Amino acid sequence: MKWKRSERLVDMTHYLMEHPQQLIPLTFFADSYQSAKSSISEDLSIVKETFEDRGIGLLVTVPGAAGGVKYIPKVPDSAVVSIINELKLELGHSDRLLPGGYLFMTDLLGNPELMNRIGKVFASAFCDQKIDVIMTVATKGISIAHAIARHLNVPVVVVRRDNKVTEGSTVSINYVSGSSRRIQTMVLSKRSMKSGQRVLITDDFMKVGGTMNGMKNLIEEFDCTLVGCAVLVEAEHPDERLVSDYFSLVKLKEVNEKDRTIELTEGNYFSKGGNEE
Amino acid sequence: MKWKRSERLVDMTHYLMEHPQQLIPLTFFADSYQSAKSSISEDLSIVKETFEDRGIGLLVTVPGAAGGVKYIPKVPDSAVVSIINELKLELGHSDRLLPGGYLFMTDLLGNPELMNRIGKVFASAFCDQKIDVIMTVATKGISIAHAIARHLNVPVVVVRRDNKVTEGSTVSINYVSGSSRRIQTMVLSKRSMKSGQRVLITDDFMKVGGTMNGMKNLIEEFDCTLVGCAVLVEAEHPDERLVSDYFSLVKLKEVNEKDRTIELTEGNYFSKGGNEE
Repeated sequence: MKWKRSERLVDMTHYLMEHPQQLIPLTFFADSYQSAKSSISEDLSIVKETFEDRGIGLLVTVPGAAGGVKYIPKVPDSAVVSIINELKLELGHSDRLLPGGYLFMTDLLGNPELMNRIGKVFASAFCDQKIDVIMTVATKGISIAHAIARHLNVPVVVVRRDNKVTEGSTVSINYVSGSSRRIQTMVLSKRSMKSGQRVLITDDFMKVGGTMNGMKNLIEEFDCTLVGCAVLVEAEHPDERLVSDYFSLVKLKEVNEKDRTIELTEGNYFSKGGNEE
Repeated sequence: MKWKRSERLVDMTHYLMEHPQQLIPLTFFADSYQSAKSSISEDLSIVKETFEDRGIGLLVTVPGAAGGVKYIPKVPDSAVVSIINELKLELGHSDRLLPGGYLFMTDLLGNPELMNRIGKVFASAFCDQKIDVIMTVATKGISIAHAIARHLNVPVVVVRRDNKVTEGSTVSINYVSGSSRRIQTMVLSKRSMKSGQRVLITDDFMKVGGTMNGMKNLIEEFDCTLVGCAVLVEAEHPDERLVSDYFSLVKLKEVNEKDRTIELTEGNYFSKGGNEE
């Protein structure tokens, strides 16, 4: 069956969206739709223009026999700004205040639509860097890690606090938790990473960065390289941070438990703009 | 700016895919593309036909002033069969065997592309039922829960074994773990669910179903209703299961730790075909 252009465009858009960051040979589409490569090229330039006009992402064409087309999810700055404003508004409600100056965020981390957009925002920041693995620590960072991973098309590894039989043999390290200065343990399945891989760390919340720093040590233990950190909310802290190369969306400036007020500002997503250490 | 049909089709496909299970008024598209409603209707019938032909999902049109169009992700049986076969092949490798007859699956649970497809398979099984919340237990079920949630457009709640300050006030229950017959505790943030909600439970692995049954009790504690359970791998077990209304993709028939062989068969996804209890 020969496909009409309109049908090809719908199916192609779906296929590209389901296969981000993958090089798809033009012959794949040509065979799939029983169409000439020249028609596929024309289709792809329509898709590319629409994706770029609407801020969906980039469509990169690699010429040559081993070439093809690759969809790179990338949001415009305006989408980042609106997510930051949404988070500031949402997290500023006084009923989110928990004992010890923590904020209740579990509902946001369980919202798939919001997580998808946040994942795309962080994936955009790292879209032109080589990343092999996304690392997070159980439990709250997992939904962010998967949301980023989907857009970068790389696996997620989850660091645990305890050792479980289902993880097989593990590597474990001790680290100092930033705020409480207590010695804690982190465990990661040995099969999770191969030496030489490039790792992006993510978590929902960062104070001094003790947990982030623990993951950084774990990455070194596996002979891997830290590419950067993506943090949803960072908290203002008088001590020097243990990690410097991070992106955050929102910053928790001050919490007043007596008046039940929460002061939030924009994180360093725009001001950082790099991942130098 | 007036949009061409080809551009509208690309953008519409993207928009629908990012907003599954949401009723989108035709006026939304008409305004967004500065096009007549009649053109939008024609566009949507092209999208609908392509989605259905290619096994992407259904496009349901609700007529009338409060109407619109809704994308329902739904995979054909052939896609379920191929995922089952993939899982059987992948899980059957002897190096997945862990002490105690467990299987190493952490890598699969961290693969975003596989999780996305598995999520769509389970979402398909429940696509015509009203579901308000997806519940899982930390840590390994979280990626499956989010994968299903994305396609059903409902929030995920994560049950924990321990109580954390970041969860706010919690409801906790004791339950008997199925295999070890030990008393264990489950904790869920009070704000996670409202009474009367309809809940889908998911987990990566089920033996007797003790954990599933614990979650079932927790659902009752919140005056909510269990709609069904989605399990990636169920293990053959001589005792009677504590839950009956579940879907599984793969069944672990037998593990021989001496010969290091793993026997897997198809789960009950097709034979169950309902969720009567």
